[in-house]
Parts: sequence; structure tokens; C-alpha cells
Amino acid sequence: MIVTSEITLNTRGECDIVDITPDIEQEVVRAGMTDGIVTIFVAGSTAGLTTIEFESGVLADLQGMWERIVPKDITYAHDRRWGDGNGYSHVRASLLGASLTVPFNNNRLMVGTWQQIVLVDFDNRPRSRRVILQIMGE
Amino acid sequence: MIVTSEITLNTRGECDIVDITPDIEQEVVRAGMTDGIVTIFVAGSTAGLTTIEFESGVLADLQGMWERIVPKDITYAHDRRWGDGNGYSHVRASLLGASLTVPFNNNRLMVGTWQQIVLVDFDNRPRSRRVILQIMGE
Amino acid sequence: MIVTSEITLNTRGECDIVDITPDIEQEVVRAGMTDGIVTIFVAGSTAGLTTIEFESGVLADLQGMWERIVPKDITYAHDRRWGDGNGYSHVRASLLGASLTVPFNNNRLMVGTWQQIVLVDFDNRPRSRRVILQIMGE
Repeated sequence: MIVTSEITLNTRGECDIVDITPDIEQEVVRAGMTDGIVTIFVAGSTAGLTTIEFESGVLADLQGMWERIVPKDITYAHDRRWGDGNGYSHVRASLLGASLTVPFNNNRLMVGTWQQIVLVDFDNRPRSRRVILQIMGE
Repeated sequence: MIVTSEITLNTRGECDIVDITPDIEQEVVRAGMTDGIVTIFVAGSTAGLTTIEFESGVLADLQGMWERIVPKDITYAHDRRWGDGNGYSHVRASLLGASLTVPFNNNRLMVGTWQQIVLVDFDNRPRSRRVILQIMGE
Repeated sequence: MIVTSEITLNTRGECDIVDITPDIEQEVVRAGMTDGIVTIFVAGSTAGLTTIEFESGVLADLQGMWERIVPKDITYAHDRRWGDGNGYSHVRASLLGASLTVPFNNNRLMVGTWQQIVLVDFDNRPRSRRVILQIMGE
């Protein structure tokens, strides 16, 4: 059984981290399957997906890491060519990855107690985002 | 056909890298499917999954990278707030990712000869870990 | 329904980034399914998969990031032991990841308009690569 579903959300950009666990949980319940996997995919090249303990300290630490390894204030070839100013957003998104697959069992996502599923929006401006869920199971 | 299964293992923490390929291979065989995918997911926010050539030199090189890009000895907001001392563990785990999907064919994982599936435990102490396998196929 | 398929391609190594979206699209169409997921997996430990806007500026920016966070010119234990000279390739591949799962709907990959699926070959020489596709759906 396969159910395709979608979450849309508004982000503030600049490494905004949004907890999408409740939305995914709700879509899994609505799909009416007890066991399976949900493939989560973000359409777009300046956002990514991962899991994290959704606690403001850790979120700030993650943002600090991005600034260290893919700094905003160095020169990007993308910006020289297109003037978008978001070269760093593309590089960060590409490293983090656009897909995540999470198993569920008895209608519950099998994540840890302190582990949330998040969208990280790396773009340099607020965006409306489309997160695709492909739920497969029985 | 879907089979949910679980591996539990003890790790030493501090970037301990554990080869879980044989355990996964065994669970796939036990599930009795010939073709499909196994979704591997680690519950918890201070460990991650990836593949690597399981050779002590490369393992040390990977650990060296983590120390460079997410150093242990800088200040983390998570630690200031909670005193856990494992802010770096959370950030590393979030960057590496908690899920991995591996195809299998004729009952064999389709990994390369020198490519093993590993759990990386970033926490600052030994842990007991639960790795979830969702095996789907026919 | 499950269809296993494979893409083989030649790369130039040294962070060569190859757009494999058309090949994957073609295999999905050929599999004759309308809805589902395609699990993409690269066999081997010196290449990885991700998505990116396939534009030469961004590609150069991504390559620049790899040189910053996993430099070619530092010492790797893997190289001291085996003399392969590609320790950095292994570390980069392990961080990027070997698998990616992309949903499709009405026979089309649900990627963004400016989002391509790419193989990144980190090895220090040209390689022939095998990318495995496990297509599941209905």
C-alpha cells in the first residue's frame, strides 16, 4: 500500500530549523497503515532534512557548525554568476541531504524520545516549502 | 511483505565505529525475502549511520574529520544549558544522519566489496544502542 | 512491485559531479510503476549521492567545501598504511552518504525544478561506477 502526501510550511530561511515530526506522525495515522516506512523528501535545492533533539541550545550549535564549515561571508561562484547571494545555502543543503526514511510500527514513528525530524531551511530569505511524504506499508 | 527487526549493541561512545553489516545481512536472510530494501534507522540523537571501508586507517581518518569540523573543545550552547557535555555529539549525529537505505538482491546486500555499514556513536560515554531494520520486499 | 535496475557510468574522479537524474527517470518509466520510491545506492566506498542545482557555479562551490573540510593535502592514516593516496576520498564519501531515496508520482520523480540527483566521485582517479536502483511501488 502506498499513500503520497505532502506538508507545506513557511520558514524564515537563514538556517531556520522546523520540527515536522507531528505533521509526519499525523499523515502516517491518516494513511491507515500500521507498519512500514515513510520516505520524506524536500523538493528544492536550498533546504535539507535530518533528525535532532529539538532543544534551543542544540539548534544554535547546529547553526554554528554550518557557519564554520560553509561560511556565509566567503565568495561563492554561484553568487558571482547569478547574484542570488545564496551560494552557501545550496552547498549546505547538498551536504545535509534532501531525503530521510523513517520506519513506523503500530502506527508510531520509531524515533527516539529526544529525536525530532526537522526541515532545515538554508535559503537567505523566508520560503514556502513543500515536503513530500511517500508512505509505504501495510 | 514487511518485517520489522532490531539490532541492539553496546558501544564505547566517543566516535566508536561499529560494523553492523553481518547483523543486517543475517536479519535480511531471516526475513525470507530475496529482493527489496532494508531501511536502517538509529533511534537516538547522538549516533548516526553511514558506509565506510572498515579499515583502521580510514576509521581514524573519519574520526579526525569529526574533530576538525565539530571539535570537542569549543563551547556548545547545549552544554551551557544542560551540562551534558555532549553538545558536539548531537551536532555530529545530526550532520551524519540517522537513516540509511540499502537494497538487497538474491538475499544479499548490494554493497561494494570494501563497503561496510556502520553505526557511529558520537556520545561522550558508552551506550546501548537500538538499530531498527524495516525490511520490505518479496 | 519491485524492480532492480542499474546504471553504470564513467567518472573522472577528483570530486567529479555527474547528473544521473535522466537515467533514473528513464528507469522509473521503464519499470512501469506510477507511484512509489526509488532507492538509489552507490556500491563502493569512495563515491556518494546527493541532490544539487546542477549549475557550474554551485558545483565548484561544493567542490570548494570538500577541499576545506576534508583537505587533500593533510596526512591520512589510510594512505600511510595502504599507499592508495585516496584517504580523503573515503572520508568525504562516508560523510556524504551512499544512499538516497526519491519518491515518484504519476511516473515522475518528485524533485524540484532546479534540483538534480548527482553522483559525486571522490576517488583520486577515473572510475567506472555502478549505481543501483531499487524501484518499489505500484
